[in-house]
Amino acid sequence: MTLEEKIAQLVGYWVDQGGEVVAPLAGEMGSSARYDEATTHGLGHLTRVYGTRPVDPVERAEWLWTEQRRLKAETRLGIPAIVHEECLTGLAAWKAATFPTPLAWGAAFDPGLVEEMGSLIGQSMRQLGIHQGLAPVLDVIRDPRWGRVDECIAEDPYVVGTIGTAYVTGLQSTGVHATLKHFVGYSASQAGRNHAPVHAGRRELNDVFLPPFEMAVLDGRVRSVMNSYAEIDGAPVGATPEYLTEILRDRWGFDGVVVSDYFSVAFLHLMHAVAADRGEAAEIALAAGIDVELPSGDAFLAPLIERIRAGRTDETLVDRAVLRVLSQKEDLGLLDETFDTPPTEIDLDSPEHRRVARALAEESLVLLTNDGVLPLRPAEGAAPRRIAVLGPNADSTEALMGCYSFVNHVLAHHPTVPVGLELPTVLEALRDELPGTEITYAQGCTVEGSDRAGLAAAVEAARAAEVAVVVVGDRAGLFGRGTVGEGNDVESLELPGLQRDLVEAVVATGTPVVMVLMTGRPYAVAWAVEGPLAPAAVVQAFFPGEAGGGAIAAVLSGTVSPSGHLPVSLPRSAGAQPYSYLHPILGGPSDVTSVDSTPVLPFGHGLAYTSFERTALQADTTVAAGGTFSASVRIRNTGDRDGTDLVQLYARDIHASVTRPVAQLLGYQRVSLAAGEEALVTFAVPTARLAFTGLHFERIVEPGDVELWVGPDCATKEATAQTTITGPVHVVTLADGRLVQSEVERIAEDAPVWGAEAVSA
Amino acid sequence: MTLEEKIAQLVGYWVDQGGEVVAPLAGEMGSSARYDEATTHGLGHLTRVYGTRPVDPVERAEWLWTEQRRLKAETRLGIPAIVHEECLTGLAAWKAATFPTPLAWGAAFDPGLVEEMGSLIGQSMRQLGIHQGLAPVLDVIRDPRWGRVDECIAEDPYVVGTIGTAYVTGLQSTGVHATLKHFVGYSASQAGRNHAPVHAGRRELNDVFLPPFEMAVLDGRVRSVMNSYAEIDGAPVGATPEYLTEILRDRWGFDGVVVSDYFSVAFLHLMHAVAADRGEAAEIALAAGIDVELPSGDAFLAPLIERIRAGRTDETLVDRAVLRVLSQKEDLGLLDETFDTPPTEIDLDSPEHRRVARALAEESLVLLTNDGVLPLRPAEGAAPRRIAVLGPNADSTEALMGCYSFVNHVLAHHPTVPVGLELPTVLEALRDELPGTEITYAQGCTVEGSDRAGLAAAVEAARAAEVAVVVVGDRAGLFGRGTVGEGNDVESLELPGLQRDLVEAVVATGTPVVMVLMTGRPYAVAWAVEGPLAPAAVVQAFFPGEAGGGAIAAVLSGTVSPSGHLPVSLPRSAGAQPYSYLHPILGGPSDVTSVDSTPVLPFGHGLAYTSFERTALQADTTVAAGGTFSASVRIRNTGDRDGTDLVQLYARDIHASVTRPVAQLLGYQRVSLAAGEEALVTFAVPTARLAFTGLHFERIVEPGDVELWVGPDCATKEATAQTTITGPVHVVTLADGRLVQSEVERIAEDAPVWGAEAVSA
Repeated sequence: MTLEEKIAQLVGYWVDQGGEVVAPLAGEMGSSARYDEATTHGLGHLTRVYGTRPVDPVERAEWLWTEQRRLKAETRLGIPAIVHEECLTGLAAWKAATFPTPLAWGAAFDPGLVEEMGSLIGQSMRQLGIHQGLAPVLDVIRDPRWGRVDECIAEDPYVVGTIGTAYVTGLQSTGVHATLKHFVGYSASQAGRNHAPVHAGRRELNDVFLPPFEMAVLDGRVRSVMNSYAEIDGAPVGATPEYLTEILRDRWGFDGVVVSDYFSVAFLHLMHAVAADRGEAAEIALAAGIDVELPSGDAFLAPLIERIRAGRTDETLVDRAVLRVLSQKEDLGLLDETFDTPPTEIDLDSPEHRRVARALAEESLVLLTNDGVLPLRPAEGAAPRRIAVLGPNADSTEALMGCYSFVNHVLAHHPTVPVGLELPTVLEALRDELPGTEITYAQGCTVEGSDRAGLAAAVEAARAAEVAVVVVGDRAGLFGRGTVGEGNDVESLELPGLQRDLVEAVVATGTPVVMVLMTGRPYAVAWAVEGPLAPAAVVQAFFPGEAGGGAIAAVLSGTVSPSGHLPVSLPRSAGAQPYSYLHPILGGPSDVTSVDSTPVLPFGHGLAYTSFERTALQADTTVAAGGTFSASVRIRNTGDRDGTDLVQLYARDIHASVTRPVAQLLGYQRVSLAAGEEALVTFAVPTARLAFTGLHFERIVEPGDVELWVGPDCATKEATAQTTITGPVHVVTLADGRLVQSEVERIAEDAPVWGAEAVSA
Repeated sequence: MTLEEKIAQLVGYWVDQGGEVVAPLAGEMGSSARYDEATTHGLGHLTRVYGTRPVDPVERAEWLWTEQRRLKAETRLGIPAIVHEECLTGLAAWKAATFPTPLAWGAAFDPGLVEEMGSLIGQSMRQLGIHQGLAPVLDVIRDPRWGRVDECIAEDPYVVGTIGTAYVTGLQSTGVHATLKHFVGYSASQAGRNHAPVHAGRRELNDVFLPPFEMAVLDGRVRSVMNSYAEIDGAPVGATPEYLTEILRDRWGFDGVVVSDYFSVAFLHLMHAVAADRGEAAEIALAAGIDVELPSGDAFLAPLIERIRAGRTDETLVDRAVLRVLSQKEDLGLLDETFDTPPTEIDLDSPEHRRVARALAEESLVLLTNDGVLPLRPAEGAAPRRIAVLGPNADSTEALMGCYSFVNHVLAHHPTVPVGLELPTVLEALRDELPGTEITYAQGCTVEGSDRAGLAAAVEAARAAEVAVVVVGDRAGLFGRGTVGEGNDVESLELPGLQRDLVEAVVATGTPVVMVLMTGRPYAVAWAVEGPLAPAAVVQAFFPGEAGGGAIAAVLSGTVSPSGHLPVSLPRSAGAQPYSYLHPILGGPSDVTSVDSTPVLPFGHGLAYTSFERTALQADTTVAAGGTFSASVRIRNTGDRDGTDLVQLYARDIHASVTRPVAQLLGYQRVSLAAGEEALVTFAVPTARLAFTGLHFERIVEPGDVELWVGPDCATKEATAQTTITGPVHVVTLADGRLVQSEVERIAEDAPVWGAEAVSA
């Protein structure tokens, strides 16, 4: 291979970018070369073929198949390109199914369903000739001010790891390669500001940020990883072999391909100033372990070629990356593919897509408070005769979807193009769900802005109704468009615009109010949970996707009992950030500070329309460090409706050689129980779940007492037990178990456990 | 020495603590043993003999001399105790001079004056038989939400290092040992919450937190260091040999004594849970490098003795600490002292104390904005006939002083005891300063609270006046008493209570308003700097001490031209924290975030009653890495009043192997110039001032281009130059220069430079 042929395999070409600037600074770079020239020597990646503009998928596939044939026929080596695409909340293509946002996956605590979703997304991609998906995001939430929180799963690394790995497993089951984002540390940027410096030490990195990636590499066998834009303690990840080579490859044995986050190689020069120019940036990135530059070869092409020709950069760095890319193309079967038959018909939003989108949306809805106003249609009784549906997100399709959805990411720039998806809003779905109820609608106000003109009509509508449903929240968008999403960071966690005013004005009418938060981050809504103008019930919906309107309507009516739980703490205020439930003693309230950052509602919280009792937690009294212990708990549905509990097993290491969190979720399991039914849930917990990075920076399991509890959230110890880890300190190896296995066993003979899965979670 | 005799040397006894709980959890511990029993085997330290209750210093000294004689006579080894006391804003004793708070030292940028202050404090301590002072605080400010910001000097490590070292030099020149607090990392606690976990990596630790301590150890030859309460990345400092032994002693050669922050040894068990009990906490602390447990032997006495007797802890750990303490006592001359003649008369607030307190207060006042309303008495013209003096801090003595002042720390618990100091308030001082002016007074509101009853009278008074001076701000206190100070952290940086309402109501009258902020932290006062209801002028006074009222009156009147500069950024909001001016590109505004955290006013800002022009910055074009380069700049007083400029030399390392700040203060120099006068200021800058911790964790000076500028603040490049560092990478050693030397040379023959010092700064 010539140098040009090698480098060509290491870059993407954004064929369809056109005049659209999808990211800041993209305009300063981008593919200046014409496409045919740029592919003379072959091409590594085709960038966002389907996800840049609204193009008809079948027509686009035909173009793509032709193009791949051309690459095979007309370049000397005849190697097709990898086609990569965004696919976080579903394939980012026109008319493709849009699933709930990752925060909703976290709220559902159901890896099995996320795996199904991943598989459906992969099938669509495979049909369209897409080989690699730029998902999932495994950043552990550390600060809700950050705009990309809606792309993240949870503030707990194990929840991120289990659910993220399920996505990887599902997607890769179809032959499509998943890409872990953003390796590593991105979510801890200073003050929640996108790309701002990350202040973290090695221990936090090892014990909080790395574990989800470790799980997806070792258990999920992920095939690609994307570097984080971040600098950690002064060292940009894209410039640091420690992360991209030593940890990822040498420690974990990853043998896939590392792709750069868009423009991040050039950013080493432009934004981090650790390279004097793009050529040096390219060398630094290659040396650190980045193999492919995306979206295009801004640094790897001319600047790097010139540097290698001048003898300043060793070409073996290029060879290493090329071998990895060619190996990936071989794995994908690309080298043998003939590209004869493009798809002539395709349904990217099939009934199966819609079924899974609906199920995941339903499971993700978190009932935060409820004075009894919900469900609207009680077990015995009828729905209200008149309901006022209010608020800026009540009749919005965009509000159903996250920042990386095709609708909000791309169609926002094409306002005249139809969405091409069935997207019933909450208003429409409630009309379907409650056909006998008269439903009035008033927007009240917009998500942003300060126009109070619509408030009065909303108040009037509420006054005339038996119940008011007010749907408020975010509008996802990018870089200044919207209230959350990439680049939309905040200094305040109050609801945007006049929305709090709207809710409080409606509550003040005396009509019972149900507030639905449709957001991409948790907001500081203490006023709605515990204030004098608190609504009668609050439902938290993290962007629930195409079927979210129907899911919300079904939960409000009572057709479905809510079963989602908070995957993040509900924050006290922006000024109380950063905060994590995974804090040591002094990260919580204490006598030595006047400020109490205790969240308004804790991680794990979520009500149902029935109640559950957790009793008789039992655990092995001792376990050797490195071994696995068993813990079981009885869960009883003590209410008069069927429902699903999330069994949450927490632990606290009483004393350790470094500070440890006062609560850590060890394992979790959804259990559906009929009214009155009881089940025994047993967890097999590898002690490695309690491992941490000790004083000498080895990950260890230390002997000592561990407090265990099960409860409705991280802060409530409803059933408690203790186990003692014995023996010498155990140094964790790759062979140690990372997963907690759980089993559900029915107890009442004549009341079968329905829907209980014996899955690993 | 018996084991009991050894341990006795390693602990303090808080003889006078009585029923007073001066710190949370102190009640759970404390000196249960009776004093005579506790001293049977000798005693290491007498804790806060003068600073716990209001006691007459002479009477107390007599008791102390007797007590030291008793220890000599009645204990087997006859070793007197070290007497330690707080002395941050002056000796914490009844009737002792109270100087400005450290933030004010930072604002004055005058190490020479701080050294004088340190010397005066030391003389008072020496007279009273006090051997060790628990000051200065060298924590670099990282987040203004933290309550202890008022005890800190600046957000720049070099300013902290130079001014902190000057304090050490002054204090120790009298034979009293200074104690550096809090080694290390305390100020970066999560969300600014006291004692909360610190998220920092090794590079930030090396390049931001350690340098001031390094300067005070190596250049200041400090004799004692106190550990920080903090944990850094999971490891409590008090439990970590890396900080207290490897860096402090092995790297820097410190051979003094490490004392524990109060209760922090027991906190290793109670608050950090890295020890199973107090005995283990004692062992861990000793092993890490803590020699003396303060305030009393809660862990080192019975729990440790028992552990050693049981053979679980090696007694050599105790021996190491005892040798250090005995060596300190020898250095102090304690072993030979006879304690014959206690002082019979003492003036702890002499004219010399008051002169320095006044000078430092004057130099520390920062004029933030001024539309011309100040000075009140123009060069040609008379003072206003009628001034309304308003606000909760206008006639308050407590508001003049910081949290660690005797008045706020101790006398707050003794409301009937007279202060015993002359403390003219701003109101009183203005009446003295402007005898021909009719001055009315109305409080308006209190610092905290929501009582609006007084607002109307203040507005009325303003309406009837030609100018209104509104003095607002903080009340320093501890642990929930007050708005700033130890334990008084905040989630909002708005001025407390109704104070903004008061100012805006007064501004709305149309009467020109001068707002004086008398605070212990910078507040988010964009509304007062740039809003539609912004006052005509804003003066920032960080608690200015006993002479602060007079200093403020002199600056307002025009007797003194303001010359203080912001040692911290004036924050945008609490939700924008943490923030530091020392940020890399992506720590500032960027295209990839919607949030602009740019401070309302930048670090270094400060106006005068005249204007200055900085021109002709020249620097050596090249300098070898490890060498020293020269830079000179011309400063001209372009106004028609005399005044003092702060010459600020900044640098930016254009490219480096890790990210570097977009601005770094290299050196600074106050220069007083008569109207029209000009001076040439020359700096000799060791390239080690540009050192940083590279990818392999060595502190290095890298070759490359460095941008230089001088301006009125860190954000304004008024005169620019460039130097290029050449040659191989230089690894910094202890022999490298840490100080920038500066020289001031008069330029205009017939206009002598007055007050210009050729000092190291």
